[in-house]
Amino acid sequence: MLDLIIIGAGPAGITAAVYAARKKMNLLVITKDIGGQTAWSGDIENYTGYQFITGPELVAKFEEHMRKHNIALKENEEVIELTKKDNKVCVKTDKGEYEAKTVMVASGKRSRELGIPGEKEFKNKGLTYCATCDGPLFSGKDVAVIGGGNSALDATLQLMNIAKHVYLINIAEELTGDLVMQEKITKSDKVSILNNTQVTAILGDKFVTGLKMKRVEKEETRSVQGVFVEIGLIPNSEFATSLERNKKAEIKIDSYNRTNVSGIFAAGDVTDVPEKQIIIAAGEGSKATLGVFRYLARLK
Amino acid sequence: MLDLIIIGAGPAGITAAVYAARKKMNLLVITKDIGGQTAWSGDIENYTGYQFITGPELVAKFEEHMRKHNIALKENEEVIELTKKDNKVCVKTDKGEYEAKTVMVASGKRSRELGIPGEKEFKNKGLTYCATCDGPLFSGKDVAVIGGGNSALDATLQLMNIAKHVYLINIAEELTGDLVMQEKITKSDKVSILNNTQVTAILGDKFVTGLKMKRVEKEETRSVQGVFVEIGLIPNSEFATSLERNKKAEIKIDSYNRTNVSGIFAAGDVTDVPEKQIIIAAGEGSKATLGVFRYLARLK
Repeated sequence: MLDLIIIGAGPAGITAAVYAARKKMNLLVITKDIGGQTAWSGDIENYTGYQFITGPELVAKFEEHMRKHNIALKENEEVIELTKKDNKVCVKTDKGEYEAKTVMVASGKRSRELGIPGEKEFKNKGLTYCATCDGPLFSGKDVAVIGGGNSALDATLQLMNIAKHVYLINIAEELTGDLVMQEKITKSDKVSILNNTQVTAILGDKFVTGLKMKRVEKEETRSVQGVFVEIGLIPNSEFATSLERNKKAEIKIDSYNRTNVSGIFAAGDVTDVPEKQIIIAAGEGSKATLGVFRYLARLK
Repeated sequence: MLDLIIIGAGPAGITAAVYAARKKMNLLVITKDIGGQTAWSGDIENYTGYQFITGPELVAKFEEHMRKHNIALKENEEVIELTKKDNKVCVKTDKGEYEAKTVMVASGKRSRELGIPGEKEFKNKGLTYCATCDGPLFSGKDVAVIGGGNSALDATLQLMNIAKHVYLINIAEELTGDLVMQEKITKSDKVSILNNTQVTAILGDKFVTGLKMKRVEKEETRSVQGVFVEIGLIPNSEFATSLERNKKAEIKIDSYNRTNVSGIFAAGDVTDVPEKQIIIAAGEGSKATLGVFRYLARLK
């Protein structure tokens, strides 16, 4: 019987796995992908110890760190149900069923969608949720970034160097991301910041050709070839209906990373930890594994 | 008026400072040293992203990361009092007085002492609390490591490669540190593990010559030239009498890193965060700064 199944292999899951391997736990990691949201990040300057590293580079280092420990890993596998039966936790995926003494949910978050006409139609036809992956395709074109937080600013900074012009379209009165990034963006004559502006439709024929937006109660259309949606993330907690979650659907944890079900722990962006940062998720993964270790020690 | 004073420059304080600088806070870091306990660590294999790095190397990377941001820094300065007056937090050190809108306590922990005869007398004369710093001085000699947790195992692993023989003297029934490390130590014929053993005195003339210990109610003496004390850490929270602390003298914080005094935050090993690890302290530093940022935003 497995000691621990970790669901997810982003910064939280990978750190948790390294700690668990070092504790010689009988361990399985089940994940859709390696790196989670970090794999979609551009330049990272706030992971302490790396002054500057790209998302994919940091993920490569994380992955290497995990693989060094020969951890059993199921990739491209999606968890659909999580239940506790007697003293076992059962994990049902799209490919099989697994049991363990404990489970750690570290399944992260995913991109929030706009929910407006044209979004589904033009997804990957000019509309994307990942500037890092798709930015380079829009060289010399006009693009829009939708959002106002750090992800939107990060996308804008990336696209400034690639696209002809970037419209940063923000529904709120002011941008909310880091001031350092705001300043860089404000200085660029390649970016127009449109605050108080709501995008109402994505326009196109075969590919994106523009978008419709509402500014101060006035509708207007802007011609763009690329739309980058950066309006936040949704916790991947749908399968965790047996766990207590908050209004944002984040899994509630205590300071030991315990959920309301004994034997089930959670860590990182999928939880109600108040901030979502790579370094925080990594720390939470470590803390959660040490919590699991203490729990298992008491079991025996 | 300063936005934030950070007390301490270990993993928590440095990460907090980098985040604060990126948020363009008007910032001062006051610290006794750079790196805190990490500077005394040997080989680090569980800081995600670095498969293997020594404590001093990781501290150098942290320091470089912080210095890149030109953060105001007072080194070799010790905080002796922390008080809240009106809407300012006042920090009194051995060299001056400072005021800020907020303070973050990230002053870490320090080595616990044995409190037995000979300890004070032979400190730095064969008795040390830092295997990384002093281990190389004991090449070819017999040494004792006192403790049973990760720090003691870490010290033993280091000394195995340097000393003639290592006695690992553990007061508890079993070692508590990582199994990976335990196995490596058990395999070595250069280490004798003495569980259930209490050291009662350090012996010597000019330098350490041995130690006295009690094993299963029987006193005996062992001849060693080096004694490495690795029995835990005490939070550096003496100056924080205005803050609520737990029985271990750790500062109590909520999930936003707030203490019981508004405007005073805390992060890392000095707090009641349940585990003390570099990656956890770093994550907590980040989280605390984001907490400060939100607090300041609401102040204006």
